[in-house]
Amino acid sequence: MQNTIRIIGIDPGLRRTGWGVIETLGNSLRFVASGTVTSDGELDLASRLCQLHDGLAEVVHGYQPHEAAVEQTFVNKDATATLKLGQARGIAMLVPARAGLRVAEYAPNAVKKAVIGVGHGEKQQIHMMLKVLMPKAEFKGNDAADALAIAICHAHNRQAVTSRLAALAG
Amino acid sequence: MQNTIRIIGIDPGLRRTGWGVIETLGNSLRFVASGTVTSDGELDLASRLCQLHDGLAEVVHGYQPHEAAVEQTFVNKDATATLKLGQARGIAMLVPARAGLRVAEYAPNAVKKAVIGVGHGEKQQIHMMLKVLMPKAEFKGNDAADALAIAICHAHNRQAVTSRLAALAG
Repeated sequence: MQNTIRIIGIDPGLRRTGWGVIETLGNSLRFVASGTVTSDGELDLASRLCQLHDGLAEVVHGYQPHEAAVEQTFVNKDATATLKLGQARGIAMLVPARAGLRVAEYAPNAVKKAVIGVGHGEKQQIHMMLKVLMPKAEFKGNDAADALAIAICHAHNRQAVTSRLAALAG
Repeated sequence: MQNTIRIIGIDPGLRRTGWGVIETLGNSLRFVASGTVTSDGELDLASRLCQLHDGLAEVVHGYQPHEAAVEQTFVNKDATATLKLGQARGIAMLVPARAGLRVAEYAPNAVKKAVIGVGHGEKQQIHMMLKVLMPKAEFKGNDAADALAIAICHAHNRQAVTSRLAALAG
């Protein structure tokens, strides 16, 4: 017997961190909620990290996911941008981990492959496929959409691991 | 009338995060404690960030500093190393901020200048000057020493700001 697993996907960023919660049971996917936690660019860095922390903690406590997944972000820009992203990503991983969730990491091309079938594609393709995979999905902006895509990627990959374990056990 | 201000300096790193607590009253500095919070390299990233969080939170709750200072780390290495450092740095800033402390940031050359008088120098010079400035200072390793240096840098700079404000008020 399978249980419904609730997954939170997180797309970290210092200014905007997207989040998406879905449920998976076998091959089925169900949209639960999505949104974006923002930080105030006028404030100092420590206060902005607190805003991301508190916003994400509210989401995790509110939706009680069982597992979490975060994009293994790859940055082409300068070191300053990478450091900023790292700081936001630290918070994005800490919050679910402190709530007792396992936090999986997926490379961006794995996320795209899970949603649109190939490792590269436009944002628009991801938006379209999210609606195909979960007709009731609602998301405002790229960050929430990316977070839902990360959650779907985890749903596919955790299932593959479970199937292999079941085959071994059988 | 001046009050004794207790400062925590933090030198963030994913493997080892140094911390140092000092007290300052006018021009005087007093060593309180120092140490290093480590994370287990065998664990997944989210668990390691939790270890850093819990270790630092214990220090902040145990020593009850009034203000915090973190090095504005500058990284010359690859993007992966910068992202790792950013994640640890996010935790290092979050913990004191969540405890209600203001978190100041100082560039590495400002930290060196505050301790050894110039913006460049060897680790050994920093260790020696820490002992000159605070004869009772105890520290094991570079991370704890650097953290104490960051705390001293904040003691000097916060005082300069206070003096200027006092002069303006007078």
